[in-house]
Amino acid sequence: MHRLIEELYPICRSITGDGVRDTLGIIGQNIPLEITEVATGSKVFDWEVPREWNVNDAYVKNGSGERIIDFNASNLHVVNYSQPVNAKVDLEELKQHVHTLPDQPELVPYRTSYYQEQWGFCASHTLMQGLGEDTYEVCIDSSLKDGSLTYGECYIEGSSTDEVLLSCHVCHPSLCNDNLSGIALLTFLGKALKKRRHLRYSYRLLFIPATIGSIAWLSKNEKNVHRIKHGLVATCVGDGGRFTYKKSRRGNTEVDRAAIHCLQHSNSDYLVKEFFPYGYDERQYCSPGFDLPVGCLMRSPHGEYAEYHTSADNLDFVRAEYLQESLELYLNVISVIEGNIVYVSKNLKCEPQLGKRGLYKAIGGDDGQGDRQLAMLWVLNLADGKHALLDMAERSGMDFRLLGKIAGTLCENGLLEVQKD
Amino acid sequence: MHRLIEELYPICRSITGDGVRDTLGIIGQNIPLEITEVATGSKVFDWEVPREWNVNDAYVKNGSGERIIDFNASNLHVVNYSQPVNAKVDLEELKQHVHTLPDQPELVPYRTSYYQEQWGFCASHTLMQGLGEDTYEVCIDSSLKDGSLTYGECYIEGSSTDEVLLSCHVCHPSLCNDNLSGIALLTFLGKALKKRRHLRYSYRLLFIPATIGSIAWLSKNEKNVHRIKHGLVATCVGDGGRFTYKKSRRGNTEVDRAAIHCLQHSNSDYLVKEFFPYGYDERQYCSPGFDLPVGCLMRSPHGEYAEYHTSADNLDFVRAEYLQESLELYLNVISVIEGNIVYVSKNLKCEPQLGKRGLYKAIGGDDGQGDRQLAMLWVLNLADGKHALLDMAERSGMDFRLLGKIAGTLCENGLLEVQKD
Amino acid sequence: MHRLIEELYPICRSITGDGVRDTLGIIGQNIPLEITEVATGSKVFDWEVPREWNVNDAYVKNGSGERIIDFNASNLHVVNYSQPVNAKVDLEELKQHVHTLPDQPELVPYRTSYYQEQWGFCASHTLMQGLGEDTYEVCIDSSLKDGSLTYGECYIEGSSTDEVLLSCHVCHPSLCNDNLSGIALLTFLGKALKKRRHLRYSYRLLFIPATIGSIAWLSKNEKNVHRIKHGLVATCVGDGGRFTYKKSRRGNTEVDRAAIHCLQHSNSDYLVKEFFPYGYDERQYCSPGFDLPVGCLMRSPHGEYAEYHTSADNLDFVRAEYLQESLELYLNVISVIEGNIVYVSKNLKCEPQLGKRGLYKAIGGDDGQGDRQLAMLWVLNLADGKHALLDMAERSGMDFRLLGKIAGTLCENGLLEVQKD
Repeated sequence: MHRLIEELYPICRSITGDGVRDTLGIIGQNIPLEITEVATGSKVFDWEVPREWNVNDAYVKNGSGERIIDFNASNLHVVNYSQPVNAKVDLEELKQHVHTLPDQPELVPYRTSYYQEQWGFCASHTLMQGLGEDTYEVCIDSSLKDGSLTYGECYIEGSSTDEVLLSCHVCHPSLCNDNLSGIALLTFLGKALKKRRHLRYSYRLLFIPATIGSIAWLSKNEKNVHRIKHGLVATCVGDGGRFTYKKSRRGNTEVDRAAIHCLQHSNSDYLVKEFFPYGYDERQYCSPGFDLPVGCLMRSPHGEYAEYHTSADNLDFVRAEYLQESLELYLNVISVIEGNIVYVSKNLKCEPQLGKRGLYKAIGGDDGQGDRQLAMLWVLNLADGKHALLDMAERSGMDFRLLGKIAGTLCENGLLEVQKD
Repeated sequence: MHRLIEELYPICRSITGDGVRDTLGIIGQNIPLEITEVATGSKVFDWEVPREWNVNDAYVKNGSGERIIDFNASNLHVVNYSQPVNAKVDLEELKQHVHTLPDQPELVPYRTSYYQEQWGFCASHTLMQGLGEDTYEVCIDSSLKDGSLTYGECYIEGSSTDEVLLSCHVCHPSLCNDNLSGIALLTFLGKALKKRRHLRYSYRLLFIPATIGSIAWLSKNEKNVHRIKHGLVATCVGDGGRFTYKKSRRGNTEVDRAAIHCLQHSNSDYLVKEFFPYGYDERQYCSPGFDLPVGCLMRSPHGEYAEYHTSADNLDFVRAEYLQESLELYLNVISVIEGNIVYVSKNLKCEPQLGKRGLYKAIGGDDGQGDRQLAMLWVLNLADGKHALLDMAERSGMDFRLLGKIAGTLCENGLLEVQKD
Repeated sequence: MHRLIEELYPICRSITGDGVRDTLGIIGQNIPLEITEVATGSKVFDWEVPREWNVNDAYVKNGSGERIIDFNASNLHVVNYSQPVNAKVDLEELKQHVHTLPDQPELVPYRTSYYQEQWGFCASHTLMQGLGEDTYEVCIDSSLKDGSLTYGECYIEGSSTDEVLLSCHVCHPSLCNDNLSGIALLTFLGKALKKRRHLRYSYRLLFIPATIGSIAWLSKNEKNVHRIKHGLVATCVGDGGRFTYKKSRRGNTEVDRAAIHCLQHSNSDYLVKEFFPYGYDERQYCSPGFDLPVGCLMRSPHGEYAEYHTSADNLDFVRAEYLQESLELYLNVISVIEGNIVYVSKNLKCEPQLGKRGLYKAIGGDDGQGDRQLAMLWVLNLADGKHALLDMAERSGMDFRLLGKIAGTLCENGLLEVQKD
């Protein structure tokens, strides 16, 4: 995953433009991706798809002709969606167009101006402090033209048309944890799911520009969103912070419970947050007219780490081991959702005799595999047709995976069966 | 308010009699008050209105003819509802008729004997300890005659016949926090509500003798109590203690939630108590046959401060600033009840584009007025026709007043509307 | 109770056999007991009643002919349900058949092998460590023959056919806390209930072998279990540990609430555990097809004290005072269940006038019997036909017994009546 991030890092992405197309092209080398283009001016609910933005070059030159700010060094230097400009300005005017971070003077901020016509640069505060009176040449060779917004979709068919939605944003330029980590995780999750022989649900992986992208997707897929039974927004999954699960708007859906269960039974530190209407695309999935069961499983939340939306969110900040741990957690949550089945015991009245089936320790009182034994009794006791496996895990406090194995053993021994609808 | 309390302080009030009439007369100079007289002997549910009690004079004289206990010095000296007496008694017998507070030897207690025919005085323990053998003249020039029970009612009409009930007791003699503070607060609350151009609810302010007064009122207004949608009993609102909210019997009514919300967002220390069937007139409003949504918002609860029902509950104990703070809290609770409206967003599917309406910060990532922004997103997210503004405040943890302002702004911008019934 | 335990202690009980019959015989001298025999081979749900086991003698002799392990010294020395054996073995083979407790080297463990054909002894680890190479004679003069499983039942008729089930196991040999304490408690509880003039419920006391006994009983009484409205499994009630209440599977039944209420208002330390499908016969009563409202009220739970299933669970470990305390707690819980009645006030609208009935302190403000007064107000306030007495106790935080007395007083005074169905 880290290697994929390295490949995608230099690309100048935005909510539209060739940067997104190039990114989706690389993802498409790993998993099958259907690309959709939504034309400039298209109405998507209360919004309109903006003109497409592309940049060739951008710089600030001092009086000696040296590029003191250079788009080629880092695409963060240009305010995302800047209008073209080519002018000579004095220091005073230059400063009005350059964003810095006085509290983090060495870092370059990430700034956008999607819906207001402006031009601007971003630079380190130290650099700007060092500049004297001079005549500066500012050039942003960008274009804002009718075109389209681009997103990619990977659909992995399962035995049901009920869907699990997995969504990440692809609109940030050279930022690793914020956007690239989610892209990498979803790409590799897609690869893993493709290999599975049996999937109960179908999986839809969205690679979309934030906000306008999810709004466009929802607008074009309004009739099919009822198929989405569970969903997660993947973002900020590559840093070393503890896991954070932000609940869906409904707050107690199966995906919420599955994610929380997996976190409780992981060895990692974690935090669960109630839903709030800010953040990533869960804002749109959880808008009141959709209210989809979509949570957000991340590590350090947006805005809560110092590197957020700065040049420090770079290839050193995200690490292969953190990405791997995040991927495993996602796979775990998916295992719970896939395996959360209602079983019915064939012996509802009194316990079945486990001993005669070799499922019970032979010598009473001689304890050994206590957990396995207790898990068996829990599954049998709760297999009344009203408890799915996650209900059992929650009530017993035992790990879903252990209960799942036990349920399998009990089925093989003719003591349990999957509930018919 | 403190000045009103000073004016009312010397009056000898009881559950009936001229003291109540004089008190209501003074209140009536501030707000329009309808006076009701309920004749002695009237049946009010399980009770009967007692004979009317009035006192001209009362004293204990020692052998030298000096008034050692004198009603004119403080009306607390006479047990409220004492029968008339005029006799000579020795020290032994005198002591059997004088109540003191051995643990607070300098204070005079407040005692009543409404429904048992007795006579008695109240005095400081120190005074009584200092008395020697002597022949004492005891005189209570009181009358217990057929008459009536008096209460006052101020009705402030709003746009709906649904009512908010505000109730205080007017039956205690020279006690400031217990009774006069509530009277003053309700009088000034009435003045403030009268000035309002728009009131959603009608307001009914009751100035009544405790227990028998509210029972008489409920008895005579049984058919209209269904109009009462919210209510508060005002008492002990002038001392310096922290606020205490005692919930209604139902425990989770709108007035309960509004009061608790306002306390949570005040800067004051406070305590919330579950309902218990003791205290003030909420006992009657919350009797099982009525079970009205009436709570009790006070400062130090009855019986929990040392000055309670003693001569120390005087003009020094209650202070203008505390009364003012209490009044503001009441007005706040009323604002929540008045403004607790269900709104519906005009963009249920996905967020509306706030930027194009000038409602969103222009430069993404450049944080500023975070709270206002977040409040706007909360209101939009929860404006699904199922959440009133107080639901939104509770779920978001944000102040009702901020959300109310935001809802107004969103309505002005055509993004929100009040839900039609 | 301790004397009964002493009498029962030496008997070699198992899940079948004469030990159980002898035990039931002694219980039957105290309370009327109906004995049921269920023949070997009878199908009881998923189980089959096993062959009957009896032992005449058992020992291990060393080369010198000395009995180094002797059934007559303690019946724990034989693995319960051992097959007969008569052989000469060397030390190596002997050790394979002798169970010890290396961590408690002086104690003899209790072991069973009901459903696997084996033979074995139990001895102290110290004894076994001291043995040298020798030829040992092992003899278990036991029989495993077709016969029957035996259980006893004491039915105490109340005014309703609704039943309270009280169950204990009678299948452990010389173990005092585990089995004998429950037997003694239920026997004396039965004696106490027999003496009662009025019982609202009928009581069924079961003295049964664990697991197979309750399964057999449930199998034969399947049609009548709907009569069981409350139940408790009695076990481990004679040690000095704090009380432990294990909830029924449903978790909030009346017996759960009654037991927890009594513990809260006892002066004893206690612990409440959620239901788990391990332990004693509540496992069967709470199997999903029955799901009976049966909890387990004990002191130290099985497996959580060092003496559990060892020779240290002896006559010194259980004490008369602990048994007595447990019995009183059981009687208390039964009092709550018996007295948990719905009352209706005859004055639903406003409080009745307690004073005129002599139920209210005469001098207002002069506090005294506060609790009694407050209890009266609670009962009146909640006597709306929707609250039984235990609901009132839970909401008010007051002791059920006090509220029960108060309800009686109010009924006598014509203020309250039992709700008609």
